[in-house]
Amino acid sequence: MDNKKKIEVCFTPAVFNCFSHPDAIVIVVDVLRATSAICNAFMNGVSNIIPVETIEEALEYKSKGYLVAAERDGFVLDFADFGNSPFNFTRERVEGKTIVYSTTNGTQAIKMASECHQVAVGAYLNLTALSDWAINKNRDIIILCAGWKNRFSLEDSLLAGAITEKILGHNNFYTMCDSAIAALDLWSVAKTDLLSYIEKAAQRSRLRTNGLDDVIEYCHSIDLTSIVPIYSDKILLGITESISTC
Amino acid sequence: MDNKKKIEVCFTPAVFNCFSHPDAIVIVVDVLRATSAICNAFMNGVSNIIPVETIEEALEYKSKGYLVAAERDGFVLDFADFGNSPFNFTRERVEGKTIVYSTTNGTQAIKMASECHQVAVGAYLNLTALSDWAINKNRDIIILCAGWKNRFSLEDSLLAGAITEKILGHNNFYTMCDSAIAALDLWSVAKTDLLSYIEKAAQRSRLRTNGLDDVIEYCHSIDLTSIVPIYSDKILLGITESISTC
Repeated sequence: MDNKKKIEVCFTPAVFNCFSHPDAIVIVVDVLRATSAICNAFMNGVSNIIPVETIEEALEYKSKGYLVAAERDGFVLDFADFGNSPFNFTRERVEGKTIVYSTTNGTQAIKMASECHQVAVGAYLNLTALSDWAINKNRDIIILCAGWKNRFSLEDSLLAGAITEKILGHNNFYTMCDSAIAALDLWSVAKTDLLSYIEKAAQRSRLRTNGLDDVIEYCHSIDLTSIVPIYSDKILLGITESISTC
Repeated sequence: MDNKKKIEVCFTPAVFNCFSHPDAIVIVVDVLRATSAICNAFMNGVSNIIPVETIEEALEYKSKGYLVAAERDGFVLDFADFGNSPFNFTRERVEGKTIVYSTTNGTQAIKMASECHQVAVGAYLNLTALSDWAINKNRDIIILCAGWKNRFSLEDSLLAGAITEKILGHNNFYTMCDSAIAALDLWSVAKTDLLSYIEKAAQRSRLRTNGLDDVIEYCHSIDLTSIVPIYSDKILLGITESISTC
């Protein structure tokens, strides 16, 4: 493959160790809802976000006076200021502030990925900016799907396919990864009517059951922002990527 | 879902604990090549097969005089009588005999699944018989893809999709499992020209690199047998399932 860089897709954090290497960059996706919510927070001017894995860590930050967004299984934890819906991260609440954030799947995936060279947060909301950022890094790329409690999730895998498609559009990348190929093919099936396709996803049903499905359409909106949240020194900061025209 | 039974697909043994429950039956698939080789051995009259996980166990059986088939990463272990190609399991070699068998991924998956109600071995070679056997059990079904060293594999996932399609054709089964839906959709993409599609799989390339790709077409041949190998009391026995006409 000469000097080409590879792109791989990891469908669940449970097997991230099969993919992880220190020179790669990692794109973490948790479409419904953590990484979409993070992108939305930066769109609304949040200063930075501290992702934490455990409820205990979130509580400790809360006791120090931080604004805390925390949920488990879709529900806001009682001590938290708000939960995991992108619509919670309004400009009025978040502009210029630091938020501590803990979710069922997404924030753990971000922490796990931090053993690699650099970690970015991906959503449909920043699809093109994110892909351009990754291409410009010119390193091996791992897309880490947060999934659902270590299970494969359709909505994350479809976004992984969309990102893979964009990145393989640049000829200095290749894949020999079966899960990247599967993600690409699933994206090809779904992309012509993404919202209909996502009706099949288990997380879609979970959100409906819990009355939390108002965010589905928003979380599948493409390219509303050119901000790419980057995880560095235990915090997420937003950088603005100039979007390519190709 | 009333009294309907569910079908789920587990893409990698690494997350089998998310699916496993004692009342379910498990279908283990490792198309290239372990479960295809097991089916072929029964087609050629093997009496029974003892799957073992470790090289040490295989060696111990060898020292007791057993016929041993054992490979790692596609290559025959030096003490073994033969390896993992279905073509090794000829009638001359296996008829009426007991074989001890250890492979990179497949045999571990069979042992792991044995904590559930019953375990069957699936391949394209016995697709319809296997599906009928599973339908007739009228229990929850888990299809466990052996994968490659805990990674997702295209060839196993496609067969999982083919089995899922057959089983969901009977209206006492349903799925709410994202990986089952993904497997179904990948199968829909691939099934019109399965051999061309499988050219994309990483294991296809591994076998080609190692000069072991003579088995690809055979391992993707559908319904050459109505034998379903069942794992019980630490051995695999072949039962003959009458194939439905529907």
